[in-house]
Amino acid sequence: MVSDGTGWTAEHSVNAALGQFEHCLVDRVCPVSTHLFSGIDDVERLMEVIKQAAKEGAMLVYTLADPSMAESAKQACQLWGIPSADILGPITESIASHLGVSPSGLPRWARGRSSSLSEDYFRRIEAVEFTIKQDDGALPENLHKADIVLAGVSRTGKTPLSIYLSQKGYKVANVPIVMNVKLPSALFEIDPEKVFGLTINAVVLHTIRSARSRTLGFAEDIRSNYSEMDHVKEELEFAAKIFAQNPVWPVIEVTGKAIEETAAIVLRLFHDRKNRCSMPRISKRY
Amino acid sequence: MVSDGTGWTAEHSVNAALGQFEHCLVDRVCPVSTHLFSGIDDVERLMEVIKQAAKEGAMLVYTLADPSMAESAKQACQLWGIPSADILGPITESIASHLGVSPSGLPRWARGRSSSLSEDYFRRIEAVEFTIKQDDGALPENLHKADIVLAGVSRTGKTPLSIYLSQKGYKVANVPIVMNVKLPSALFEIDPEKVFGLTINAVVLHTIRSARSRTLGFAEDIRSNYSEMDHVKEELEFAAKIFAQNPVWPVIEVTGKAIEETAAIVLRLFHDRKNRCSMPRISKRY
Ligand SMILES: Nc1ncnc2c1ncn2[C@@H]1O[C@H](COP(=O)(O)O)[C@@H](O)[C@H]1O
Ligand SMILES: Nc1ncnc2c1ncn2[C@@H]1O[C@H](COP(=O)(O)O)[C@@H](O)[C@H]1O
Ligand SMILES: [Mg+2]
Ligand SMILES: [Mg+2]
Repeated sequence: MVSDGTGWTAEHSVNAALGQFEHCLVDRVCPVSTHLFSGIDDVERLMEVIKQAAKEGAMLVYTLADPSMAESAKQACQLWGIPSADILGPITESIASHLGVSPSGLPRWARGRSSSLSEDYFRRIEAVEFTIKQDDGALPENLHKADIVLAGVSRTGKTPLSIYLSQKGYKVANVPIVMNVKLPSALFEIDPEKVFGLTINAVVLHTIRSARSRTLGFAEDIRSNYSEMDHVKEELEFAAKIFAQNPVWPVIEVTGKAIEETAAIVLRLFHDRKNRCSMPRISKRY
Repeated sequence: MVSDGTGWTAEHSVNAALGQFEHCLVDRVCPVSTHLFSGIDDVERLMEVIKQAAKEGAMLVYTLADPSMAESAKQACQLWGIPSADILGPITESIASHLGVSPSGLPRWARGRSSSLSEDYFRRIEAVEFTIKQDDGALPENLHKADIVLAGVSRTGKTPLSIYLSQKGYKVANVPIVMNVKLPSALFEIDPEKVFGLTINAVVLHTIRSARSRTLGFAEDIRSNYSEMDHVKEELEFAAKIFAQNPVWPVIEVTGKAIEETAAIVLRLFHDRKNRCSMPRISKRY
C-alpha cells in the first residue's frame, strides 16, 4: 500500500476488502501480509516500492493525488506485471464530473493549512478530552454535558466505544453498572434519549472476564467473584432490570461486534432520534 | 453513501477524495453535503435511498459486499441517471484475482464472529485503556510500559495523538512540558528511542491557547500567563532546550498537521527504528 499522505485510507479500504476473504485468511490458509508505505511523494521512492513489490510477487494498492504520480504507478505496474488498484482515482473522477470541478491534484501536505484549525477540528479534540475525563463513571455531575451516555457492566466495551465516538466529535460519558451498586442519580435526571444500554452474552462475557482477570493479576477471591459464571449472569440480570426500568434507553447487544460496528448502531439511533426523518442517516456539510 | 456495514469505509474514502476539491469547498463555493446510510442490507431500503438520491440530484457512493446488492445499486443508478461509485468492488476483485480466491460476498454482519475476540482486538482495547490512564503525565512510574512516549508543551495535540495511536494498538503515554517544571526522571531512564518531541509554531500556538483559555474560562491572570505571546515563546524555547539535550528523540513539527498526519509520521519513524530496513513501512500479517 502506497500513499503520498498518511496511508490510512488505503489501509482502511484494504482491511474492509480483506473481510471478503476471511474464509481463506483463517488459520493462514492464504498467508496475506500488507506493507504500508506512507508519505511517498516523489517518483524515485515510488519506483523503489514498486520494484520491491515485483520482487515479492505482491500487488500494489495506491492513493496518489498527483495525476502524474498515479499514472507512473499504473504504468510501472503494467510494465513489471504487478496487479494494482487505485483506491481514490475513480471516486475522485466521479465526484469531479458530478460537481463539474477539476480535482486539485495536490496531495494533502501540499495544500493550504487553514482547515486544520477549523471549528470542526477543535470540536473533535474537545470531545476526546471530555470523554477521557468522564471514563468509568468519573464526574457524574458532568453527565448532562455529554452528547451520549453509555451504561453497561464491566467489559461490554464502554471505554473503547466512548473513545471511538469521541473521535467523531461526540462528547461521551460512560457509567459502569456494578452488581448491587447504586447508579449516580444524575443518570436518571438527564435526557433519557441520550442514554444507551450495552449488553452482552453471558458466556462470552465470562470468557472475556476470565482472560482479563488473569492479565490484571486479580487476587483469587476477587477474580472468582468478577469472572465466575453465576456472578456474571446475576450482574447481567441486574443490568437488564435497570434497562427495563428505563425503557427509553435503547439496549444494544454487543456480542461479537467490533467497536466500530456498535458505534455505527449507536450513531444511527442517535441521529434518527434527532432528525425523526424517514430513514436514519448521518449528515454532514462540507 | 450507502453501506451494508458501518459506512466508515465509504465515509473515510469520500473525506479523502473531497480533499481534492478543497479549492471549491472553501467558503462553500461548491456547497457539498453527505448523507451516510449504514446497515442497508436489503434491496428495498437500498432502493429507497437511491430514489432519495435521485430526488436530491445527489450521487451515490456505496460499499455492498453481496454482489447482487451491488449490481442492483449500479443498475438502479443507471436507470435513474444517478452518478455512482463502488468503493470496494474493484479492489476486492483485484485482490481476488491476485490471491486466486473468490470473495465471500458476505457483509460483515453475516460472517462468523470469532475474529472479534481475536488477540489483536484485545491488544487494541488494552492499548486504549492504558493510554487513557497515562494521559497528561499521569503515572510516570508506568512510562517504561509504554510503546511510545510523547513530550511537548500544552496544546501540541499530545492527548488526541496518543488516543489515535492507541486505537492502532500502541500503548502511548504523554508527558507535558511546562515552563520551569522538572520533568519526571523516568522520562530520561526509559529507552530514548521510544520518545517523541512535539513542537509547534509560536504564533499558531498563541492563537490556539487564546481560544482555549477563553473556552475554559481561565481567570484573567492565569490566562495571560498561559496564552501570552512572550510566555508561549519562552515555553517553546524551554522545550527546545530539553529536546536538544536528548538528541535521540525525534522532534515533530505539528503546525497545521491533522492528528492522523502526525500519527503517520510518528509510526513511520517508530517502525523504521524497529526494522532498520531500507524503506520505512508498517507491516501486518493477516
Ligand atoms: N485534506 C486533504 N486534502 C488533499 N488531499 C487529501 C486530503 N486528505 C487526503 N488527501 C489525499 O487522499 C489520499 C489518501 O490520503 P491518506 O489517507 O492520508 O493516505 C492521498 O493521496 C492524500 O494526498
Ligand atoms: N470483517 C469483515 N468481513 C466481511 N465484510 C466486511 C468486513 N469488514 C467490512 N466488510 C464489508 O466492507 C464494506 C465496508 O464496511 P463498512 O466500513 O463497515 O461500511 C461493507 O460491505 C462490509 O460488509
Ligand atoms: Mg472501561
Ligand atoms: Mg492533553
